[in-house]
Amino acid sequence: MTETLTSALGEIVGREHVLAGEAISEDYARDEALTVTPHKPDWLVRPADAGQVARVLQVASAAGVPVTARGSGTGLCGACVPRRGGILLAFERMKRVKEIDVHNHMAVVEPGVTLSQLDDATRPHALTYPILPGESSGSIGGNVNTNAGGMQAIKYGVTRHNVLGLEVVLATGEIIRTGGKLVKSSTGFDLTQLVIGSEGLLGMVTEVTLKLRPRLVHRQTLLLPFPTLEAVTAAVPGLLSTGLDPLVLEYIDLMTMAAITQHTGLDLGVPQPIKERALAYLVVVIEGRTAEHVQADVEAAGARGLELGAMDAYVLPPQAGTDLLRAREQAFWVAKKAGAGDIIDVVVPRAAIPPYMMAVSRIGQEHQTLVVGCGHAGDGNVHLSVFQPDPKIRGRVVRAILKAGMDLGGAISAEHGIGSEKMAYFLELEDPVKLALMRRIKQVFDPKGILNPGVLLG
Amino acid sequence: MTETLTSALGEIVGREHVLAGEAISEDYARDEALTVTPHKPDWLVRPADAGQVARVLQVASAAGVPVTARGSGTGLCGACVPRRGGILLAFERMKRVKEIDVHNHMAVVEPGVTLSQLDDATRPHALTYPILPGESSGSIGGNVNTNAGGMQAIKYGVTRHNVLGLEVVLATGEIIRTGGKLVKSSTGFDLTQLVIGSEGLLGMVTEVTLKLRPRLVHRQTLLLPFPTLEAVTAAVPGLLSTGLDPLVLEYIDLMTMAAITQHTGLDLGVPQPIKERALAYLVVVIEGRTAEHVQADVEAAGARGLELGAMDAYVLPPQAGTDLLRAREQAFWVAKKAGAGDIIDVVVPRAAIPPYMMAVSRIGQEHQTLVVGCGHAGDGNVHLSVFQPDPKIRGRVVRAILKAGMDLGGAISAEHGIGSEKMAYFLELEDPVKLALMRRIKQVFDPKGILNPGVLLG
Repeated sequence: MTETLTSALGEIVGREHVLAGEAISEDYARDEALTVTPHKPDWLVRPADAGQVARVLQVASAAGVPVTARGSGTGLCGACVPRRGGILLAFERMKRVKEIDVHNHMAVVEPGVTLSQLDDATRPHALTYPILPGESSGSIGGNVNTNAGGMQAIKYGVTRHNVLGLEVVLATGEIIRTGGKLVKSSTGFDLTQLVIGSEGLLGMVTEVTLKLRPRLVHRQTLLLPFPTLEAVTAAVPGLLSTGLDPLVLEYIDLMTMAAITQHTGLDLGVPQPIKERALAYLVVVIEGRTAEHVQADVEAAGARGLELGAMDAYVLPPQAGTDLLRAREQAFWVAKKAGAGDIIDVVVPRAAIPPYMMAVSRIGQEHQTLVVGCGHAGDGNVHLSVFQPDPKIRGRVVRAILKAGMDLGGAISAEHGIGSEKMAYFLELEDPVKLALMRRIKQVFDPKGILNPGVLLG
Repeated sequence: MTETLTSALGEIVGREHVLAGEAISEDYARDEALTVTPHKPDWLVRPADAGQVARVLQVASAAGVPVTARGSGTGLCGACVPRRGGILLAFERMKRVKEIDVHNHMAVVEPGVTLSQLDDATRPHALTYPILPGESSGSIGGNVNTNAGGMQAIKYGVTRHNVLGLEVVLATGEIIRTGGKLVKSSTGFDLTQLVIGSEGLLGMVTEVTLKLRPRLVHRQTLLLPFPTLEAVTAAVPGLLSTGLDPLVLEYIDLMTMAAITQHTGLDLGVPQPIKERALAYLVVVIEGRTAEHVQADVEAAGARGLELGAMDAYVLPPQAGTDLLRAREQAFWVAKKAGAGDIIDVVVPRAAIPPYMMAVSRIGQEHQTLVVGCGHAGDGNVHLSVFQPDPKIRGRVVRAILKAGMDLGGAISAEHGIGSEKMAYFLELEDPVKLALMRRIKQVFDPKGILNPGVLLG
């Protein structure tokens, strides 16, 4: 069968765009998840358009061969690792920015377009796509399939809130278009939203229509040291109540701040006596239409921060602000380098961050495991790195940490997704009634189960 | 069977909360849709909590009796009219605001809570739920099921973007909780988003968690007259590019403006020579954190408007601004009073409004039918009233108008929903592959088809 299929695939996408077996590079066996065992596909197929994707799916469907989608491979949950082999559809040839629509403030892109490529395409029009997960080489298709979030979610929401329409190839080879250049619609079930975050289980996304925003050039970064994490969390609603609408609202704990400043040599101008007493920092970025607006807003935020218990308020020089956030984004790589065994991106109600961090600390102590991290204070997303070489103990720690988040009304993943890495936890901890619904929805879209088996739902 | 079922329902919710046959008031046979024939349920059941709803659904499921949900009955597509009789679940007893969570800026409410009730509950906390469809007596449950929009969607999105979690009773009587007090999540298929806008076909919503925003008290209204509709539409991207982030961006055409000012006696201070040449108006509402911010933004918007072709720019006195928008919201009632036979709320890409209005005008002329309307310039939502007493001709006109919108990349309904009123058009004009997916999703949630038959999918 292998050779027949190889030649059938070659006829669809061109022989040079089908690789099989040993010819496939190790790169295609992994993403950036820490614990996922690499697994190579049997075929690597690089389609040029939706029509080719449709024909590949028809062939795969007839042969009962699994198909996994891959963008840039920057995911953190193993969702693009072909767990059961089969065909890996790599979207690296489908990376056209089809349109920057300046009248509707929208972009139409192919799934292989990266965030940085889109950023370059929107800049000349003074527009921007404001979703900024840590990795700008990530693809839009990957962002859609994991519902990527990032630091600016507090102002602009996550991927789900900024995708207006999709072209999706179904497992049958049928092609549907959902939504469109429309910012509102009440016309039947929302298939766009159903596909977003579905980790390649429901169809192959071959085109994405995105909402763009005006690119505001004025911004300032405010750093507020607090004596405790509780004080940071308590200050957040008070800061937001003012209507200041920050672009970024992050907390950075003592250890992460120390790692960042040591790692980068960044001097944030915080005097030693404050540094010694501050256990947590709030980073507030304000953007605006004019320098005056931003200036006034930053002053108001600083004053409000002091009222809410900040030990002081520092407006960072522009470069230091940028560097601090960049370093914060690199926290994952720092953790990886330091030997973290797993990373977690639980989300809880934002006011529950302090009790959650207490629970996490207790779990770490119980299992003699170092667990450190920081998170998006504005949206309750907590990133944790678990340092525990023994996979068995680590599994117990991760399970307990996820469970503690769910017990506080949270969910296992805020923005990384479940993939194969968190799948066992998800299948164990999630409500079985909801899992059954998801499995049956999966069957509606993919009756033969060829799309990304071994991910999310097993 | 009737009497057995009546008594079974009475045991669940209390005899006084079950009405049957003639005892049911005519009010429960209708909503505000213009063309839907009233239809009474066989039973009117008023549950007190999710547990009762679950037991009602179990009984209904066993008996194969249809169940339709009803909030305040203010819908505009007949989605809460029990087309095939059966049980009408009226949520009028489930109207508790369970929590205004000031730490997370969220509200947890029962489905019968009205928008104005929620507004009263959030006001003391200086918070607000910013979704404002025309009718403040509408229920949150109804808003969720039709994905209600309204005038402030350009800044705050629609219902879908502001609902974070649901409690849903399935047709089997099982109760699930989706999402939560979480602003981001990538943890499995998004069942919350799937239920939003599903018009009561997938389950009964018994609790809703909503995102609240700071209640900004400073606002001003700017009125910009333009010589043509094209000029209005062309100005919109230029206005938004500034980063002004208006709360409202509406266009009002000449006829609607005349109707509003005559109807209300509103004097907007537009001089006669401008009035005579202006064919369309843009209404821009700016809200902000301080009076100074708003003042500066309104001045900038006015100046930008003049650059973009506005004939002049008027800052309205606060009362006139409020009155104008209220009158604009009442346009539906004015149209109804004037004898409109049907209303349409197509959505198109906002830049396509001028060609769309040309197409609509051509369709009206071809069928000698008066079609008037205005819409949300910021989001491409066009509200049209069709004045044609002959239902056959009217049906052809409506079909052609909907089709013309879809041909421009639009959708049949922006915010009213499909219900039973637009169902025949939807089933004819929508992609059959998508309809088949929706029908199979419906089956996943409701294998016996007891939830709201005769609505949306037939």
